[in-house]
Amino acid sequence: MTPADPHSEDAGVPSDDAGVPSDDAGVPSDNDLAAGRPGWADTLRWNESGLVCAVAQQHDTGEVLMVAWMDPEALRRTLATGRGTYWSRSREVYWVKGETSGNIQRVLEVRHDCDGDAVLLLVDQTGPACHTGTRSCFDRSRSIS
Amino acid sequence: MTPADPHSEDAGVPSDDAGVPSDDAGVPSDNDLAAGRPGWADTLRWNESGLVCAVAQQHDTGEVLMVAWMDPEALRRTLATGRGTYWSRSREVYWVKGETSGNIQRVLEVRHDCDGDAVLLLVDQTGPACHTGTRSCFDRSRSIS
Repeated sequence: MTPADPHSEDAGVPSDDAGVPSDDAGVPSDNDLAAGRPGWADTLRWNESGLVCAVAQQHDTGEVLMVAWMDPEALRRTLATGRGTYWSRSREVYWVKGETSGNIQRVLEVRHDCDGDAVLLLVDQTGPACHTGTRSCFDRSRSIS
Repeated sequence: MTPADPHSEDAGVPSDDAGVPSDDAGVPSDNDLAAGRPGWADTLRWNESGLVCAVAQQHDTGEVLMVAWMDPEALRRTLATGRGTYWSRSREVYWVKGETSGNIQRVLEVRHDCDGDAVLLLVDQTGPACHTGTRSCFDRSRSIS
């Protein structure tokens, strides 16, 4: 039998590479998120690659749009700019959702989960979130059940 | 400037450790998912630890309940039993959501995302999905913005 709580045994253990927001995290911006709640970088449990999983959800319809990855700098940029900004593991660059496609992702709120290794972004997504042209990366055509 | 499509460069590249469903994946079961669509294990892009990220969403309300991890066997069990079954990275065991708490997670549909490294589970979650007692692991008290 497995415990009901798979997370408890390591919840709250700070990661060695948690890092801190950069010095300019407090630079004034015109969005509602600004620098985020103090200490967020230490609250999160960055994985061995220094990342957390980020789930973007359309704030009003509830659609789960995409899953991507963030390091502390990507999340800092997201908070500072109000634009979904992620870390590409394959290309090893930051990318801003909609920067070339115009399908902008405005981030209204960021929450972490109970064990701090994932974040939920409540967003207002313009147009398709998926590069394939579907609204969500989890389009119903991609059902495996 | 970053490309609009962060996923395309490696989308569809099969992972060496993609694996295949076990021999008993086709055993008749009393749920609607059964063995899933043939070839799903090869469609997914398992990471270097053999896992995909799994997002569980309440099918009717749209609540994002939790994020956990699955290897091919966890997903096979989920499909075969209709119960959310995950791989614990820290304890290195499979765990069935609600097995001890009673907060059962009935899985109605599984979709993968465009690059196949994440799955979305549409579920019917009994009670709290989070071991802390909150309905979602992403409770609004865990906002960092």
